[in-house]
Parts: sequence; structure tokens; C-alpha cells
Amino acid sequence: MTATVTAQDIDALAEALAATHGITSLIIFGASGDLTRRKLMPALCNLYSKGRIRRELRIVGVARTDLSTAEYREFIHQEMEEAGGFQPNAQEWADFAYRISYLMADVTSLESLRELEEHLERLEDFDPEVSNRLYYLAIAPTLYLRAIACLGEAGMADDSNGWRRLVVEKPFGTDLASSHALNDVAHAVFREEQVFRIDHYLGKETVQNLLVFRFANAIFEPIWNRNYIDHVQITVAESITVAERADYYDHTGVLRDMFQNHLLQLLSLVAMEPPHVFEAEALRNEKVKVLNAVRRIPAEAVAQHAIAGQYQGYRAEPGVAPESQTATYAALRLFVDNWRWQGVPFYLRSGKALQDKTTEIIIQFRNPPHMLFPLADDEDIPANTLAIFVQPDEGFHLEFQAKTPDAGLQMRQVELEFHYQSAFAGQAIPDAYERLLMDALTGDAALFTRADEIERAWSIIDPIIAGFNGPAAPPLYFYPPGSWGPEESDKFLAADGRAWLKGRRGQP
Amino acid sequence: MTATVTAQDIDALAEALAATHGITSLIIFGASGDLTRRKLMPALCNLYSKGRIRRELRIVGVARTDLSTAEYREFIHQEMEEAGGFQPNAQEWADFAYRISYLMADVTSLESLRELEEHLERLEDFDPEVSNRLYYLAIAPTLYLRAIACLGEAGMADDSNGWRRLVVEKPFGTDLASSHALNDVAHAVFREEQVFRIDHYLGKETVQNLLVFRFANAIFEPIWNRNYIDHVQITVAESITVAERADYYDHTGVLRDMFQNHLLQLLSLVAMEPPHVFEAEALRNEKVKVLNAVRRIPAEAVAQHAIAGQYQGYRAEPGVAPESQTATYAALRLFVDNWRWQGVPFYLRSGKALQDKTTEIIIQFRNPPHMLFPLADDEDIPANTLAIFVQPDEGFHLEFQAKTPDAGLQMRQVELEFHYQSAFAGQAIPDAYERLLMDALTGDAALFTRADEIERAWSIIDPIIAGFNGPAAPPLYFYPPGSWGPEESDKFLAADGRAWLKGRRGQP
Repeated sequence: MTATVTAQDIDALAEALAATHGITSLIIFGASGDLTRRKLMPALCNLYSKGRIRRELRIVGVARTDLSTAEYREFIHQEMEEAGGFQPNAQEWADFAYRISYLMADVTSLESLRELEEHLERLEDFDPEVSNRLYYLAIAPTLYLRAIACLGEAGMADDSNGWRRLVVEKPFGTDLASSHALNDVAHAVFREEQVFRIDHYLGKETVQNLLVFRFANAIFEPIWNRNYIDHVQITVAESITVAERADYYDHTGVLRDMFQNHLLQLLSLVAMEPPHVFEAEALRNEKVKVLNAVRRIPAEAVAQHAIAGQYQGYRAEPGVAPESQTATYAALRLFVDNWRWQGVPFYLRSGKALQDKTTEIIIQFRNPPHMLFPLADDEDIPANTLAIFVQPDEGFHLEFQAKTPDAGLQMRQVELEFHYQSAFAGQAIPDAYERLLMDALTGDAALFTRADEIERAWSIIDPIIAGFNGPAAPPLYFYPPGSWGPEESDKFLAADGRAWLKGRRGQP
Repeated sequence: MTATVTAQDIDALAEALAATHGITSLIIFGASGDLTRRKLMPALCNLYSKGRIRRELRIVGVARTDLSTAEYREFIHQEMEEAGGFQPNAQEWADFAYRISYLMADVTSLESLRELEEHLERLEDFDPEVSNRLYYLAIAPTLYLRAIACLGEAGMADDSNGWRRLVVEKPFGTDLASSHALNDVAHAVFREEQVFRIDHYLGKETVQNLLVFRFANAIFEPIWNRNYIDHVQITVAESITVAERADYYDHTGVLRDMFQNHLLQLLSLVAMEPPHVFEAEALRNEKVKVLNAVRRIPAEAVAQHAIAGQYQGYRAEPGVAPESQTATYAALRLFVDNWRWQGVPFYLRSGKALQDKTTEIIIQFRNPPHMLFPLADDEDIPANTLAIFVQPDEGFHLEFQAKTPDAGLQMRQVELEFHYQSAFAGQAIPDAYERLLMDALTGDAALFTRADEIERAWSIIDPIIAGFNGPAAPPLYFYPPGSWGPEESDKFLAADGRAWLKGRRGQP
């Protein structure tokens, strides 16, 4: 019962990689940072051990720390052991580490980049005709602009003897203007198809599964519209507080940190029309169409469509202003003004210090148009819901009505359940970065964010941020850590005759 | 999350029963027979112990065996102990047994019925103004006609001092003519609304659940039609051979024994339009509409639409003619010629001595109209199926496509599952007869078969039986006991580009 989707198959990807000529170098800027240690290196090592990266790949760590290659390899090895994720055996590690070299350099210094160019040319020496390079910016976002400009100035975007690609981590800008400026610089140096903007949520299995769920099954798409769906809820909840990121967070807030990227990405995947083919351009065209169709909320009207919250104790976090108005929680009601979704509210919420860490999408269907079973006057049966869990326990729940045994026509809400972890027992769900690194190395941009997509998302969020900071700002409600946000968020939905739904069992 | 459907609730039914005035007598003709011992008495005793039958109910066993009431009670008690189903404790049994009296009588003898009338009048003595009677024919079907006529002649259908109802077990006639004649006699004595024709399949939980599933959920009905459904399969498989019923069976065959009643009932429940209300007349009107719309197969064309099978060894069963042409297996392709189902084949199959005992309905949906995920040339992904299990393990399976973790866009068929027994753990699923007896006592005919429904079903099956016995009969294929019927049945579907689907896991 397995359908192998060859063109997109991982093994096929690996074969495609293996079949490319010449050398490929993966240059990681910010090689001593968190992301490199915790995510990129474990993912690369894992891919390498699975035989999915060809032996000709060189990994070049670049950072300002003064380390030899041997020291850097040891540093990464220790970090991986401490992190406790994928643990290569001695032979695997030795094979993998052999790929790695390290260079102390500063991506914003032309001189440093000249040294890097020499370093790379030495590595590429044995096949000077074809040498591909993937530049990975794992550095502070504030450095992106200068780093990309420098890569251009240093002539390192020149792809006359092999492809050049750039991977940029989120956040890509802090508003429409800055993301637009960043795109301008990127486009001055690289062509759009060379730029891979990562939102690691897109590398998650369930997000891809959501597309398979919607479009490889004939039974959901006919009811996936305003005729049958009452509303959609998207929750990205974190249980952690801002902790050591407080200083950064206090300037960012939940709208920039979560809504502009993750929540709008999930919204566009849920709401998009079927692309004609599962390929980067077709897919991203459809996502951009959804973002275009999202009804903009003017700054002065934000209070009618949003709830702002801040967890109690936030202002006491070191690095947070004592009178900080930064929202650590927000709930939004958005509408997608197109044929399919007209009038269907999308309720989005996200926050820190909430009761649970969970990302879930709930499709609340309408009631049957006519209830032919006799109900008492004050009774109503709950409508169907489909809960899509993105993390931590990926899967689907479909709630429906069934007759209670031995009780006449009494009905009860029951669940059809599917969980990835149990359905595919023994098949480890890989970290999002494994998939994303593979895709970037093969040049498949389907799971990366396009320039216009980023800017459209900012154009939705910018006026809301302005509204939060402006004269007509919604009140900032305080909520206890470990709750589900301010009570006013519940009232916000109650005023629409709706309620936040528990997705995972046991949640409120 | 429980919606109490008050008007149809069992407790409400019990209350309604308790609130009726006067005496109700349940007169069982054939009181020493199999059905009474194995089904009716355990169901009644169970209902009584649950407090669902009011204390004023009298149960009168009538048979030709010479027994005293005490002996009869003891006989029933022993039978129930041996059967091993519901076991009342001593007090429960004593309370229940006190309701029972026994009369040696012959339902086809006017004199016997006069004795019965006297017996009943003695029981009803203390409230002569209102005394209701439910006559239950648990006798040989060949006696139905005379029995009903005699009840009429004896004046026992006279409902001037309380309601009179008649319960008739299947088979109700052996063809259209005989069922019509039987209906004529029944209508000469009783009004149609007094006649309760039992098909115990309709008392099964899943059949009622099928209606709740379809009509209390908004998400299935939109895809429940020819636009989204490729075909429907209905299987009623028995693992037992004809055994001691061989003589009877050899004159009946699988079409009369299974298709005319169970399979066509299931078909009409799957295919019916939503009734405007869950009440007997509305429900049965819709079922009759479906049966009316079933395309008739002329006798001379049966071989093109049916497969006939006989299990190897059948002719050696005692009581079977050595050259018997009786089909113990049949498969049919039917079409429902209406707006919803035009062009959607309904494949029905049933047989004895098959590999497993199972009753299941499989809805095979169409493929997605467009496959946007890249597939290899020779590949196809399986379409969605919904399997509805009626017995033995009642529940639903929804098969859909999900992405295989860590494998690019490889997809796999996975299952959303719901099983009654686990979902409603601890809530015993009652025997169909408990529900049906309650309904007959309260006068709710929704789960009983109406006169025109029976006749329409015969009008579909009669020409097929004629075809099976006529000059253009389909070949009789032999199949080994313990198989899934003759191979030709698989070829029959294969010729349509389809295949019998396994419903329960582990089935072929």
C-alpha cells in the first residue's frame, strides 16, 4: 500500500546529489553558535551516517572564535554528546569529521572573506571546473544585510563554475521595510531562486503531511471551504518563559516572534488552493495568494480583532523594561477574503508561559444543515472537528458523533485518531533541519519562504504591531504563567459564539 | 459532550411504557422454540432487570408442548443457563419468572385461541378497560398465514379496549407473490401500523449508528454520492455451513436467505436520502425510495450481473439433493438509478462456509481529481475507503494517505479507527432483540420493515432467483469451505477494474 513518490523521494534526492559533478561546500557562518551546534551539525552528521550526503561534501565552519580545525571538530563532537540527540559511533564520527574544516573569519569583513575564498579554493582544488557552494547564515539577524553585501563584494556569488546558494534563518527582517531592504540586497547579489529562507516549521513532518492529507485524499477537499467549515483555530503555545532571551524578546514581542512566520505559514497551508504540482513555485504562488487575500486590519481597528496579553512576572525578567508593554501573548481574528473562505474566521493565538507546549490546527466544521434526530429544546450536538497536531505529538483527530450503545438514540462525540509515532513505529521522525539541508543542497525550494511571501506576511502583521503600539492599542491583559492566556481571550471568542477548543486530550 | 436525544432515549421509552395505563400482555406463539429460548426470553429478562419493562407486563408463552407454567418457567431458566448469555441472579429471575405464564395451545386452531382469550382475560381482569396485547409469531413461517387469519377470526385483533400489535419474524414470504398474499391477510386483520416485521439486522447498533454517522455529522453527507464514491461493497459472510438446516436451506438458497432481507436493508440504509425526521414513516419512505430506484435485473440477464457459488461438500449434507443447484454463495452488482447514485455499482456478496463471519460495508471513494504529487508512471495511490463493520467487531475504519516520515514525499495508506467496544468500554452492546422488543412494546416501527418495503425487496430478488433457476442461469461455481467464495467472484469485480476489499485487518 506504499506509493513511492519518486521525484520527491529522499533516496532519489540523495542519488541526485551523488550524481552532481564536482565538489559541494557547505559554508556555515556562525559555526560556533547555538544553531550550528544544536541543529545543523547533528542533522548533517545524521544525514551523512544515513548515506544521504555524498562524500564530496565539504563542511566549512566559519566564526570569529580562534580555533583550529581539530579543536573545532572536537568542540562539535562534545556539543553533540552533551546535547544527547543523534550519537554517531566512533567510525561514523571520524568519517563525518573528516569533511569538516574550520576557519576563523568575519563574514562582514572583506579581508576575512578573501581568506575564506582561498580556503575554499584549496578544498575545491581537485575539481576546479565544478564547485558548488551553499552559504548558510547562522549568524545574528542584524548582520544579514552586511554579510550578504560582503559576499557579493567578495565575488563569492559568482556561479560561473558551480551553483551558489544562500540559506538565511528567520527572522528575515523585523517589519515590511526591513525585510524589503534585506530582499533588495539579497537580490542585488543573488537571484531569488538562489535564496533559501528557512522557517523550520516548514520542515516539520506534519506540515508536509498536511498537504498530503489535503491533496492526496479525495474526501477532505470537497468539505474544505466556507460551506462546511465554521471557523479555523491555529495555536502555537509555548510553556517556556522568555528566560535569557528577555532582552531580545522585549523588542520583538509575540507578533514578530510567532505570528509573522509560523502562524501565517500554517494559515496559508490550511487555506491554500491546491497547486497544480508539488513544486516550489506552484506551492509558493498559492501561499502568496492566501496571504494576499488576508483582510488587512488597520492599526486603529486592531483592538476589535486582537487580544494582547503579558504573563505575570514578565516585567521582572532581567533585561525587560519595568513598564514593558510588550505582548507575550496575542490572539487574532483574521479573514481570508476569497471565494473559498469568505466569512470564515481564522483565530490565531500564541504565547509564552502557557500551560503546554503545543502547535495545533483545529478545523471546526458546521453543524449538519438539518437535525433529523430529535433533540431537547436546550440541546445541541457538537459539530465535527478535525484537529491537526504539528507538535509535539504529530497526528490527526477527527471528532464525530456516534450512537451510544444501548441507549436509544443518545449520541456521543467520539474520535477517530491517527498518530504518526504509533502508526510509523520504529521510523524515527527526523529533525526538520535534516530535510531542509537536503532540500537546500539539491536546490528544492518548496519548503522555503519566497521574498514576496515574507513581505506579504509582514504587510499583514505590520499594521497590527502598529496598532498594539499606537493610541488605539488593545488593553494589555495579564495572565498567570501556566494558564492558557488571559481570560479576555476566551471572551473574545465567546463574543463570536465560539470557544477555544482543546485539541489534545486532557487539555482545557 | 453527550447529547441526549430525549424523544428516542431508552429511558424515555421505558418511562413512556411505565406511563401507559392498564395491562400489557406479550403473547409469544412458539414459546418452546429456538428463538424464544435463545433470544426473546434472555432479552426480556435483561430488560426487566434493567427496569425497562414495567411490572404490569405479562408474558404468555404459547406452544403445543404439554407443560405447566411452573415447568415452562423452569424450562426457560435452564435454557438461559445453558446458553450462557445474560444470567439473572436468583431474585431477578424470580421477579421476572413471576410475569410468565404458559398455555398449551395451537395458534392455527380457533378453539385453542378461545382458550387463550380466556387466559388473557383472566390476566387482564383487574383492569378490563385498558389491556394491550403484543402477539409475537415465533412459529414456523409456513404457519404465518393461518395464524394471522385465526387471530382475526377469533376477534383477537379487536383493539377497542387497548392496542393490538403483531410481530412477525423473517422470512416474510418466499417471493413477491407469497409476501403479497401474507400482507393481504395481515391487512385484513390488522392495520399496517399494527404489524411489526422484524429483521433483527435493523436492531444492531451499527445499523442505527450508520444513520447517526451519516446524518448527525456534517462532513460525510457532502461526499456521499456519485461525485466522490466509486463504488460500494456489502458483504454478509458466514463461516458456518448449512448443517442441520440443510433441508430448509436447499429450498431457500442464499438469495432468499440473505439478499432479500439483510443485504438489501443495508443497501437501503447506505443509499437513502436523509429523512426529514427520524421516525418510522419518514425513514421507511426513504428506504422504499431506494428500493424503488434499484435497477431491476431481468431473469435472462442475471448471468451478466451475478455470480453463483456452492461450497464443496454441500451436496453431501444430509437433506440436500445430490444434484442440488442451490447457491450457497452469490455476488450481485446492483445500480441505484437516482440522482445521487447514478453509475455507482453496489457489489453485494454473501455466502456460507466462508473464511470468516463478518458483515461489513465498504465505501470506496474515488481518487483525487488531480494528483499534484509526482508519481512514477506505473504507480497509483490507493483511494480513500471507509469500512463500516456491522459484526462482529462493530466500528469504522477510514483509510487515508499520510506522508511516511523521513522519506521525502513517500505516502502510505494509514487508518483512522473507531471501535465501539473500546470507545464505549464497559457499556455492553445489547442484543438486537432487546431494542426491537422495547420498540414493539412502545409502538415505534422505525426499525421494522413495512409491507411495501418487503414487497419491493422481493421484486428485486424474484427475477434474480428466476434467473438462477432458468435457462440463462449463471454457471454454479464450486468453492472450498473456508475460502472467500469462488475465484470467479474476484474475476467478476476485476472485469470492472475493481476488487473485493478486505475490511477488517488481516482479512484477505
